Amino acid sequence: MPSYTAPTKDIQFVLHDVLNISGHATPGYGDLDRDFTGAILGEAGKIASEVLSPLNAVGDTEGCVMDNGVVRTPTGFKDAFAQMSEGGWPGIDMPEDFGGMGLPYVMNTAVGEMFSGANMAFTMYQGLTHGAASAILVHGTEGQKATYLPKMVSCEWTGTMNLTEPHCGTDLGLMRTKAEPQGDGTYKISGQKIFISAGEHDMADNIVHLVLGKIVGGPEGIKGVSLFIVPKFLVNEDGSVGARNGVSCGKIEEKMGIHGNSTCVMNYDEATGYLLGEEHKGMRAMFTMMNEARLGVGMQGLAQAEVAYQNALEYAKDRLQGRAVTGVENPDGPADPLIVHPDIRRNLMEQKSFAEGGRAFLLWGSSLIDAAHRGEDKDADGLISLLTPVIKGFLTDKGFDMTIQAQQVYGGHGYIEEWGMSQFARDARIAMIYEGANGIQALDLVGRKLAQDGGKHVMAFFDLVKGFCKENAEVEGMEDFIAPLKAASKDLQAAGMYFMQEGMKNPNNALSGSTDFMHLFGHTCLGLMWAMMAKASLKALADGTSDPVFHETKLATGRFYMTRTLPMTSVHLTRIQAGGEAVMALDAANF
Amino acid sequence: MPSYTAPTKDIQFVLHDVLNISGHATPGYGDLDRDFTGAILGEAGKIASEVLSPLNAVGDTEGCVMDNGVVRTPTGFKDAFAQMSEGGWPGIDMPEDFGGMGLPYVMNTAVGEMFSGANMAFTMYQGLTHGAASAILVHGTEGQKATYLPKMVSCEWTGTMNLTEPHCGTDLGLMRTKAEPQGDGTYKISGQKIFISAGEHDMADNIVHLVLGKIVGGPEGIKGVSLFIVPKFLVNEDGSVGARNGVSCGKIEEKMGIHGNSTCVMNYDEATGYLLGEEHKGMRAMFTMMNEARLGVGMQGLAQAEVAYQNALEYAKDRLQGRAVTGVENPDGPADPLIVHPDIRRNLMEQKSFAEGGRAFLLWGSSLIDAAHRGEDKDADGLISLLTPVIKGFLTDKGFDMTIQAQQVYGGHGYIEEWGMSQFARDARIAMIYEGANGIQALDLVGRKLAQDGGKHVMAFFDLVKGFCKENAEVEGMEDFIAPLKAASKDLQAAGMYFMQEGMKNPNNALSGSTDFMHLFGHTCLGLMWAMMAKASLKALADGTSDPVFHETKLATGRFYMTRTLPMTSVHLTRIQAGGEAVMALDAANF
Repeated sequence: MPSYTAPTKDIQFVLHDVLNISGHATPGYGDLDRDFTGAILGEAGKIASEVLSPLNAVGDTEGCVMDNGVVRTPTGFKDAFAQMSEGGWPGIDMPEDFGGMGLPYVMNTAVGEMFSGANMAFTMYQGLTHGAASAILVHGTEGQKATYLPKMVSCEWTGTMNLTEPHCGTDLGLMRTKAEPQGDGTYKISGQKIFISAGEHDMADNIVHLVLGKIVGGPEGIKGVSLFIVPKFLVNEDGSVGARNGVSCGKIEEKMGIHGNSTCVMNYDEATGYLLGEEHKGMRAMFTMMNEARLGVGMQGLAQAEVAYQNALEYAKDRLQGRAVTGVENPDGPADPLIVHPDIRRNLMEQKSFAEGGRAFLLWGSSLIDAAHRGEDKDADGLISLLTPVIKGFLTDKGFDMTIQAQQVYGGHGYIEEWGMSQFARDARIAMIYEGANGIQALDLVGRKLAQDGGKHVMAFFDLVKGFCKENAEVEGMEDFIAPLKAASKDLQAAGMYFMQEGMKNPNNALSGSTDFMHLFGHTCLGLMWAMMAKASLKALADGTSDPVFHETKLATGRFYMTRTLPMTSVHLTRIQAGGEAVMALDAANF
Repeated sequence: MPSYTAPTKDIQFVLHDVLNISGHATPGYGDLDRDFTGAILGEAGKIASEVLSPLNAVGDTEGCVMDNGVVRTPTGFKDAFAQMSEGGWPGIDMPEDFGGMGLPYVMNTAVGEMFSGANMAFTMYQGLTHGAASAILVHGTEGQKATYLPKMVSCEWTGTMNLTEPHCGTDLGLMRTKAEPQGDGTYKISGQKIFISAGEHDMADNIVHLVLGKIVGGPEGIKGVSLFIVPKFLVNEDGSVGARNGVSCGKIEEKMGIHGNSTCVMNYDEATGYLLGEEHKGMRAMFTMMNEARLGVGMQGLAQAEVAYQNALEYAKDRLQGRAVTGVENPDGPADPLIVHPDIRRNLMEQKSFAEGGRAFLLWGSSLIDAAHRGEDKDADGLISLLTPVIKGFLTDKGFDMTIQAQQVYGGHGYIEEWGMSQFARDARIAMIYEGANGIQALDLVGRKLAQDGGKHVMAFFDLVKGFCKENAEVEGMEDFIAPLKAASKDLQAAGMYFMQEGMKNPNNALSGSTDFMHLFGHTCLGLMWAMMAKASLKALADGTSDPVFHETKLATGRFYMTRTLPMTSVHLTRIQAGGEAVMALDAANF
């Protein structure tokens, strides 16, 4: 059975040596000194390894079962969920007024990677609650906040997001769910929503559904969509749980993975709903949460890559098979461990360099969210808005690829469920799809974000890279990092230039290269992260660190990324510059 | 539920317009005219669509169940298996003396792609029987052939290959299964084998296990391995099925996919075995079959990519979501079909160009096998020996990737099992692992095949590409194909040169790039295939074909591959030339 070890040391390295978070101006960051974050991460890591990880396979095997409308979560989930709630983990970055810990979002990401790596399906219950609570926090009335937030911050009540309907996913303008105003400020919500994660289960006293629907008589299409709070049980004046509302789970979907999470068809039959935010402004209310939610999904991709890598590494060290080509390395054994073989190492190094680079990217992105929200830094807001589709799309595409590579290390043992490697891949697969499929992320990036505010944010990114390269050009040891980073950034700029010139003439020229651009951007970001990490490790070594091996390993891993992975930017550029002609050549009927 | 449509027209195009098989000197090829192959493919395609495809989801859902040592295959498998047997399909390329049709192997591949695309798990039962029968055909005594082949060619009895043990997969020298000579020509076989596909089931009267084991007192390691025939039921003098042999299924594995195939732990407890081939030459007997078996697995990768593509294409045409960026295309509908969106097209074109290029590669490779075996052409034998790891490794790596891309077209619907896209991906995943994991294919390619016979075969490949380019340099319309093919071939040569120079100094420099080389080689082969197909389509158009749309579509699809996929060769070369330093830098303990 696979295991999980929290990468506490690596997270601490990124938070402090690379990002120097306690030196940031962002409110709340001053308190995040190394000891404090170390204590939190240590505690979270213990829960991840000891409580959540052992339930991961249980969740996959048992799944969620519906019986007479009641959904039963897998054995052990309920107790673990209560334990998480008691520890206050679901509300780590929620306001203290509502029972949260009031810590910055970056800490939510840091512990979230651990929980999600140990048990993705389980962690989704609190992740969705977090998303719904955030929406109420920003858009709710004082009354709504008082009614729902204290219970949701503790996860006594959980939350859901209801967007998709059978005939519409991305194109929410086609939505059919309707809301009839009752004249008393409430609405009757009717319709069917599908793919509702954590839609129904047995771990909470109430479930607070946030539901998109159209108020009868409102504008057509996407402009007529509003957001409603629809609790499973109506809430009495005194805050206690009252009568059952007209919402029920019609079915649990059979899925490729995340079996431990109940993905439900939800039926709304004149259910009582309360408007959240303004009428017909439902998409705006939903989108406020998008950056966080999408970053959270990017985190899932990274987290599954990390746990899969950890187990593949152990297997590669344990499993004896064949002999090293350069001479026997384990003369007392019947064979050498897999890790001696160059192709196995190539595979492991790809995983390791992705996981560590991706983690830095994710934590940097989270610190930008804090700067935007807590620090009201408009530039940070613009930058993270640009980077969000990259974090989501690139980290989940690559995260999934890495789970497949990790599975490959096991040979046939990777394919049987017993060893758990299949589950990592099956679970990771959903992250490429939900919260906006990765093709939509690429479209958002190229079609919207790139040109936002006159291209100001992408220019800021280039300036940041340029500044870093200039500042560190002469630093000994940085030469292995600066030149490849410059080359990648040049490819990214050339791609942006191509879109500006050719996309104007024909948008298909830009959009045919959108996925390539997202990956080109992702690689460049990881190149930047590796350069920043290299700088931090060189400094630590120069300062006489007590742990030189950690930093030398970091440098070697970074050099691998720069020489063997980052060159992907050139082929992405070539593909982008090939334009839309070959992509759009065929009539649909001739495929 | 997904469907399957046999790509008969495309196979016919490759066989006749591209490969001109009926004009080959290979014995038996003269009979393969267009009408004859068309009749066979038409019949096979019908069975694939109507009989096998509907059972694919059934196999996945029900799986194989063991009850009291008896393994039950999914509903409908037994009848369909009998139907295949009655139709003579399992013996299509087996000698007529033993009840086969005596057709060339290329026809086995052509219909095999259909059967495997329609139902991979089902088709494995006859695929493994084919492999075992081939081994008996080549290495068996006259008595063994007479006893086993007629029954195996018809699939009344099925076959298995028993190599892997719990502690050894790739490194078979570690094998523990032992064979005690009984003095009467028979052996008592004892040991445990794992991951035995079709190891036990209810569709055949007998199961003929081919088992690798070590004769007691023989040489150590791989040099002491022999191959044995171990039937489930001993065979009486008159050929009828006799007493139960000491072999049993200990367990059916729970796997990620191919649930319809029973993957068994097989226990041998003093089972009676008969030596197949020579003592201690078991590996050689097994390896005789390797080219065919590995090509067959490459075919599985391609076949899953094809069926996944077919369904993704249908979905992309049906599903209405969003509007085309260049203007509404379906004004009467609430939205445009997915296929109008450039990123969806990019995805579909990648799938289509891979499936058609891969199919040509596979059929060309099969024709080389025929030339080698039937035509006793040593050069063809050398070339297919070189290309086999590329066919297996590249087509299964990419084939799996394509099933993931096809799944992505469905968004959330791709993740739920109901739509069947998950199964294609889960089934395709095993092809990267079994019959030699793809890392082993890459090792075989770079470590053995490249330098075989003084590098003669890789030089022959380069000459072939060079000759083709020269011959077609001036042909109008070929300019889109020749230049990219030349560039790819140049990258491949540079990589080979690097291995020669740097691999000599340190084998890690070559082996760190082995997987990249396998992919670089695969892309170059598909580039060659597309150039050959383009030539055939240009000719057809010049000759005034009655189906210009087919050939224009072919050319457009080829141009997509040449401009957007083939440039991958440059990044593979860059990675290869980065050498082993970054790959091997870390001590195993510091990962």
